[in-house]
Amino acid sequence: GDAAAGKAKAAVCAACHGSNGKAQIPTYPNLAGQNEQYLVVALKAYRAKERSGGQAAIMQGQAAALSDTDIANLAAYYSGMK
Amino acid sequence: GDAAAGKAKAAVCAACHGSNGKAQIPTYPNLAGQNEQYLVVALKAYRAKERSGGQAAIMQGQAAALSDTDIANLAAYYSGMK
Repeated sequence: GDAAAGKAKAAVCAACHGSNGKAQIPTYPNLAGQNEQYLVVALKAYRAKERSGGQAAIMQGQAAALSDTDIANLAAYYSGMK
Repeated sequence: GDAAAGKAKAAVCAACHGSNGKAQIPTYPNLAGQNEQYLVVALKAYRAKERSGGQAAIMQGQAAALSDTDIANLAAYYSGMK
């Protein structure tokens, strides 16, 4: 993935997951430094509605707007963050 | 949660997520330093089978064996790890 393109796409993510990849909300995950391939798996699982319950509906909606390329780019961006 | 009790319960977790909370498998998440409350949410979602697809069945099985107290203790353990 292209981390610079991911950053450009990440403004909406930052509202909950922090501009530094540290979640602002304790029930939400930090993303900074997370495994790149796991981030791809997780985003695709939300997009496929394989994650539900709790606040998962928010991520289902967000991920629905993402292409495979967007997901790869976002994963590169957050995994590379310290 | 009680981090020491969590550590005692975490031997099986370490096989995939690392004894240092850094996953040995790139498609699996690091847990070290993750938000405690998020870890509780995620484990309960797996236990409730609200996460499926891919390798989620592995975590459904693992989480099925955990009580609410176990989950709280594991979350305390991994969230406190650097």
